[in-house]
Amino acid sequence: MAAALALSERGRGRTAPNPNVGCIIVRDGRVIGRGWTQPGGRPHAEAVALAAATAAGVAGSTVYVTLEPCAHYSPRGPACADLLVAARPARVVIGVGDPDPRTAGKGVARLRAAGIAVSEGMAPAAARAAMAGFFTRQEHGRPHVTLKLATSLDGRIALASGESRWISGAQARAHAHLERARADAILVGRGTFAADAPSLDVRLPGLADRSPRRLLLSRTARVAGWETLAAPEEISGLAHVDQLLVEGGADTAAAFLRARLVDRLLLYRAPILIGAGRAALGDIGLASLADAHGRWRLADARMLGSDRLEVYAAA
Amino acid sequence: MAAALALSERGRGRTAPNPNVGCIIVRDGRVIGRGWTQPGGRPHAEAVALAAATAAGVAGSTVYVTLEPCAHYSPRGPACADLLVAARPARVVIGVGDPDPRTAGKGVARLRAAGIAVSEGMAPAAARAAMAGFFTRQEHGRPHVTLKLATSLDGRIALASGESRWISGAQARAHAHLERARADAILVGRGTFAADAPSLDVRLPGLADRSPRRLLLSRTARVAGWETLAAPEEISGLAHVDQLLVEGGADTAAAFLRARLVDRLLLYRAPILIGAGRAALGDIGLASLADAHGRWRLADARMLGSDRLEVYAAA
Repeated sequence: MAAALALSERGRGRTAPNPNVGCIIVRDGRVIGRGWTQPGGRPHAEAVALAAATAAGVAGSTVYVTLEPCAHYSPRGPACADLLVAARPARVVIGVGDPDPRTAGKGVARLRAAGIAVSEGMAPAAARAAMAGFFTRQEHGRPHVTLKLATSLDGRIALASGESRWISGAQARAHAHLERARADAILVGRGTFAADAPSLDVRLPGLADRSPRRLLLSRTARVAGWETLAAPEEISGLAHVDQLLVEGGADTAAAFLRARLVDRLLLYRAPILIGAGRAALGDIGLASLADAHGRWRLADARMLGSDRLEVYAAA
Repeated sequence: MAAALALSERGRGRTAPNPNVGCIIVRDGRVIGRGWTQPGGRPHAEAVALAAATAAGVAGSTVYVTLEPCAHYSPRGPACADLLVAARPARVVIGVGDPDPRTAGKGVARLRAAGIAVSEGMAPAAARAAMAGFFTRQEHGRPHVTLKLATSLDGRIALASGESRWISGAQARAHAHLERARADAILVGRGTFAADAPSLDVRLPGLADRSPRRLLLSRTARVAGWETLAAPEEISGLAHVDQLLVEGGADTAAAFLRARLVDRLLLYRAPILIGAGRAALGDIGLASLADAHGRWRLADARMLGSDRLEVYAAA
C-alpha cells in the first residue's frame, strides 16, 4: 500500500476533479503492474495498472489500490470495479473507501459479489492525506488549501523596505517550487502579484510544464492571464481545482485563515532575525489566545539546508 | 569529563566572578570524590572534590576537571594547583585552559613540575559552553547574554490587546524558569516590568531560592529592588553577573541585538497562529537581508509538550 500511495503522489495536482489514485498489482511476490490516475483524471490508476499487467496475467494476483475502485458509469471510461471483476485478481486491498455516493461501498460490493476477496480501509489516514484534494472537495465542496509562509525566526517575511529575497535558502525555495507543481492552482494577493507575478511558476528541471493555474485575490483588479476571486469563499466555485496553494502575502494569508479555509500550513523558517519588518500575517480575527490553541497539529518537519520546514495540519 | 561537565552545571549562575567548574576524582575505576564551585565562587570545585576524596586517598588517582586548576593566590582560599600537587594524583585531565592571565598555562606547568601527568584541552568546546559566563567575561569584559523569546508560529508575543498568557505551555514555561535559575541576573524593559514584575522569579519546586538579581533597562525609570541600566552596554559594569538572561519585551530584545550583545537565543515556539499582534522584536538595525544571514547557528532543539524549543548560538 505504501508503494501504491507513492504512485498516487505522481498525479497530485493534475487529476481534478478525479482523485489521484495509485495502484500496484502483485503476483507470486513480483510487481506485474503499476498505475496512477493520469493528467485530467483519465485513465484511472486501476486501468493503467491492469493494462500494464495483462501480458503477465492478473488472475490470482493481489491488487493494491489507494481508493475504493469506482462503480459508476462514465462516458469518459469504464468503471474500475468492472475492469477488476473481468481481470479476476484473487484479492483487492483498498486504502480507503470512496466518499462519492455513486461509488461508496458499491465498488467493494461488486468485487465481493464476483468472488474476489476484499480488504477495506487498510490505510485510511495516509490515503486521505495523499488524495486530500479529492476528499476535501467531496466532503466540504471546496479545494484542499495549503498556505505557504517563508519567515525569519521572528516571523517576518520582508524587511521594512520590502526586501524579501531571500529569506529562505536554495533548498527551501526548490521545495516550495515542488509544492507548486503538486497544486492545481496557486493564489496570491495584489501585493505579491505586483512584486512577484513573473516568477510564480515552477522552476525545477523537468517540471516547468507543471506550472499551475494562477489566481488573484482582489475585489477590484483584473489581470490578463489570471483568474480573479473577490473573496476566499469563492474557491468553492473553481472547477478542476482540488489542490490550492496560497502563497501570500500577509493579508491574503490572513483572509484565508479568518475564513477558516486553510487545511495545511507549510512553514519555511530561516535561521535569521529581521526585527522591524513585514509580518507574515495580518488580522486573522483572533479574539483571545484560548481560541488560538489546538487548531494546528505538527504533521511533518525536516531540515532543508539551514532552513527548517514544518508542516502543520488543521486539527 | 562529561560527568565533570554535568557537575559544573550545578554552579551555573551562582559562582560569578569565578567560573562554575566541575571536578571528579577516579581511582581504580571508582569515583572517590566529586565537587563543583560553590555559590559565591568558593570553595573551588577541586577543593570540594579533594576534601570528599581524602579518606579514600587521592594518591595515584585521576582527577578530571573542566578548567585548568588555578595557580594564583587569593585571600579567599588556596590555589587549586597547589592543593593538587599536595594530594599527588597520578594524572589530571583538563577540559579547557584558563584564559585568566594569572593562571593561563601556569596551573598546568605547576602540576607537571611536580611530576603529575597532565592531559590538557580534552573538551574545549563543551567546557567553554558549560562555563560560558566566565569565558565571555574574560574575553569580552561583559556577561554572557541569553535572549529568551516565546512566540507563536508567526512570531507574535502577544495579541494586539496585549494578552500574552499563555502562548507557550506549562512544560515550556517550566523550562524557562529553569533558565532563570541558571542566570546570575535577569533583565527586562519597562513594558515587561509593568506587566510582569511580580512574576519574574523562579517558580520551580526546590529552586525558589535561586531567583536571580533583577535588572531593568530604562533611561528614566527607577524602581525599588531593581537595578537600572540606561543602555545594554552597561552590562559590562555589572559586578558578579556573568550569566545574564534578557526576557523582553520587543524593544529591549531589539536593543541588545542592535548592540550585538546577544550570545545565545532561546526560542520557545507554540503551534499557534496569532496574526495581527505584538511582534517579538523591534528594530534590530538590519540594513539588508544579506546582513541577517550567517549570524545564528542552531545549537539545540527539543519538544516541550507541543511547543518546540530551539537554542541558537551567535555564529
